[in-house]
Amino acid sequence: MIRRAAVVGGGVIGAGWAARFLANGASVSIYDPDPAAPRKISEVLKNADAAYAKLFPMRRPLPPPQFSDSIAAAAADAELIIEAVPERVELKQKVYAEIEESSAAAIIVSSTSGIRPSVLQKNMKNPARFLVAHPFNPVYLLPLAEIVCGEKTAPATADKTAAILESMGMHPLRVKKEIDAFIADRLLEAAWRESLWLVKDGIANTEDIDAAICLGFGLRWAQMGIFDTYRIAGGEGGMKDFLLQFGPCLKWPWTKLTDVPELTEQFAETIAAQSDAQSGQYTVREMERIRDDNLIAFLQTLKANKRGAGVSLAKWESKLRAAQTPPEISASAPMQTVRRRVPPHWTDYNGHMNESRYLECFSEATDSVMRAIGADENYIAAGNSYFTAETQIKHLNEIAADELLHVESRVLSAAGKKLRLFHEMKNENGEPLATGEHLLIHVNLQTRRSSMPSEKVQNTAAEAAALHAKLPRRD
Amino acid sequence: MIRRAAVVGGGVIGAGWAARFLANGASVSIYDPDPAAPRKISEVLKNADAAYAKLFPMRRPLPPPQFSDSIAAAAADAELIIEAVPERVELKQKVYAEIEESSAAAIIVSSTSGIRPSVLQKNMKNPARFLVAHPFNPVYLLPLAEIVCGEKTAPATADKTAAILESMGMHPLRVKKEIDAFIADRLLEAAWRESLWLVKDGIANTEDIDAAICLGFGLRWAQMGIFDTYRIAGGEGGMKDFLLQFGPCLKWPWTKLTDVPELTEQFAETIAAQSDAQSGQYTVREMERIRDDNLIAFLQTLKANKRGAGVSLAKWESKLRAAQTPPEISASAPMQTVRRRVPPHWTDYNGHMNESRYLECFSEATDSVMRAIGADENYIAAGNSYFTAETQIKHLNEIAADELLHVESRVLSAAGKKLRLFHEMKNENGEPLATGEHLLIHVNLQTRRSSMPSEKVQNTAAEAAALHAKLPRRD
Repeated sequence: MIRRAAVVGGGVIGAGWAARFLANGASVSIYDPDPAAPRKISEVLKNADAAYAKLFPMRRPLPPPQFSDSIAAAAADAELIIEAVPERVELKQKVYAEIEESSAAAIIVSSTSGIRPSVLQKNMKNPARFLVAHPFNPVYLLPLAEIVCGEKTAPATADKTAAILESMGMHPLRVKKEIDAFIADRLLEAAWRESLWLVKDGIANTEDIDAAICLGFGLRWAQMGIFDTYRIAGGEGGMKDFLLQFGPCLKWPWTKLTDVPELTEQFAETIAAQSDAQSGQYTVREMERIRDDNLIAFLQTLKANKRGAGVSLAKWESKLRAAQTPPEISASAPMQTVRRRVPPHWTDYNGHMNESRYLECFSEATDSVMRAIGADENYIAAGNSYFTAETQIKHLNEIAADELLHVESRVLSAAGKKLRLFHEMKNENGEPLATGEHLLIHVNLQTRRSSMPSEKVQNTAAEAAALHAKLPRRD
Repeated sequence: MIRRAAVVGGGVIGAGWAARFLANGASVSIYDPDPAAPRKISEVLKNADAAYAKLFPMRRPLPPPQFSDSIAAAAADAELIIEAVPERVELKQKVYAEIEESSAAAIIVSSTSGIRPSVLQKNMKNPARFLVAHPFNPVYLLPLAEIVCGEKTAPATADKTAAILESMGMHPLRVKKEIDAFIADRLLEAAWRESLWLVKDGIANTEDIDAAICLGFGLRWAQMGIFDTYRIAGGEGGMKDFLLQFGPCLKWPWTKLTDVPELTEQFAETIAAQSDAQSGQYTVREMERIRDDNLIAFLQTLKANKRGAGVSLAKWESKLRAAQTPPEISASAPMQTVRRRVPPHWTDYNGHMNESRYLECFSEATDSVMRAIGADENYIAAGNSYFTAETQIKHLNEIAADELLHVESRVLSAAGKKLRLFHEMKNENGEPLATGEHLLIHVNLQTRRSSMPSEKVQNTAAEAAALHAKLPRRD
């Protein structure tokens, strides 16, 4: 890492860079001629600070940056200087000239989205120390930075910059040859131009296009790119099969981008070989499972955040639940309240399901008991619920990703506002994994205070307790 | 929902449709002439079953589909018939002709990725009941289905199909006008053709391109599309500002797609108005926070799954942790072990942090104590760790999304393999939220059995217990 960075241009990109430096312990000086810049930068830093505090369990607040009143003042003493000014070649070149007057040795990095570094560095005195590192908004969260060297960039500059970015939690991606818009923005620009045509031609409005992205392929692309996705689509035949199968559609008018490379046998082999080098260590079935596990985690997350694909999932889950009979209350067996496989993201560094996910399953079991006694979605929507007051968990055994578990539940007692539950988690062979004993209090969701349950819920819960008292003793 | 569906063509798309129908309680008959089809379909259904069991807390296994030996047998009695055969117009038309011989009234749905429904339905006897519903692989998880009507499709067919798909957890997206490749695949095809050029020209290999997607804009697109993303990029000026600012770059050679719509004032206004209708209810700052909360959840998920952007995050977190002093052990104050904001996806239907996330914070606090007594990453990498055996939580107060919490921890006792910890969670005002008392057992990660801690860890833990015994009494 470096100790001192400078940022010229305090828009969302510049401020995002500043946040990342500050989070990594570097001091940052920023120059931006806009009088509103300090306010705007502070707002981005506030967002970044909140994001880091949610991302990491032990965060100290971000220290503030320094605001400099000239490029020279910002750049002096900095080991690395970020340029993040608007995409005008002359403006950027002027900034580099000013930087070179006050800083002799620092690395100078342009954040340009697509101007070739050879163009930018043309008039520099020491162009060897200049390169492009193109980051993505929000820079304080997204890891990607495209590293692009100009004709006069020293290889050591690229190596050093890549090492610095990597130490800051970023993923430096070396673009092999200079090209306008590099890699990501070429794809983005193609999709953007195609999107504009769709609006122009009345095929779709902006909301339709955004839905077409984030409810489908966008979810896939958050975890695998276009080649890995198509490798999977090729099925057992792999990438070459995919190319030969979909080769003809390169000639079809499926986009306005009609200037296409010819898909010769040799080109197909080049791509297939690159794809093998990239992902040949997995079978297609393994890649499908990796993809699915990531998608499951995204969907659950989006459901909790009530966004995008999560909205469809929430509706679906509620519908499936309504179609399901709640678990049966009887004196012959505990209630069957949960049956699920362990998603891989529920496991931790010890190689087993994290302790908090045991409680998540017990929480799901409690929801299931609540439905069985009539404290269901409608009851909650009407302003009533149960909150957990006390929990005791005994961990008896480990469980790994992908394994099946189930929870059996009983009502220990139900009196007034209090409801006591006992959950027992078992693996597929019926071996005990954990037990949970929980005291719940009935609450009014408006006042957030304890309250009496409805007579119906109270009676059903008491009946359940009476029936479950007849069950064989729990361990 | 419907009770009986048929699927013609048992590739990943057909089998994915089958899984979704089965999950929703419909029976499904499938026809595919390939003798290997039942095996391939069963593999997809197995993936789907595992995915649903991870996605939902109370899943029954998927029932099996029926395999029919002709299109007629599969289609008879079905209310909805999915065609998912290869992208050849004549083949598809032949399938429809066979379906029409055995099914008089069912809705016939093509899964084509891009052939126009007017072309497909041309020779049908009753083309009114035909349309395209283009789903995305894996169909059993991704909600999007593009609904495209041909010239002869009855509006009622589209309405009914949309309602059926919605009842199956999908998001039917009506494409306003027929066009080759519809919406999503036009964007995909443009990005794909651009990607092929990048490989062809030696700018990047397949792995670079995939990294450029899934470590940057792909993460954004899993939760907001291209227009919402650029609306945010426009900053306080909004969409029209963005268009005017980036309008010129439509003329730049930033993609091979050089045939571009002219960005007139009027066209910019159309887009800005559509974007306002789509997301005008949020300020740009609010959209940034929604985006960040989704990204944070994705990043944490990918870290747990060791994929894509999660790999960068894991490295970064480990580096940040190494640079941090572990919490101080003293007789004057408990250890400061956790300081974090509540990510929105940690909250539940009761409008507060779910009980399991209290334990997640206590689990993070335990990790922090472990580091302080020397049971750190290196210690764990060497095959030693602590597992929680017993947990008691008392919930004292609620906490909402975005609020700040911290955890203070003390070692109650440390003797042999046993370590007892006490965690106290407080909100920003120092008010107690919960306490946790935990019994941990030292384990050997190879044998998965209890073992003695190292002398150093044992001594430090015992010292901590002695110092913490002098602290003011805990509540």
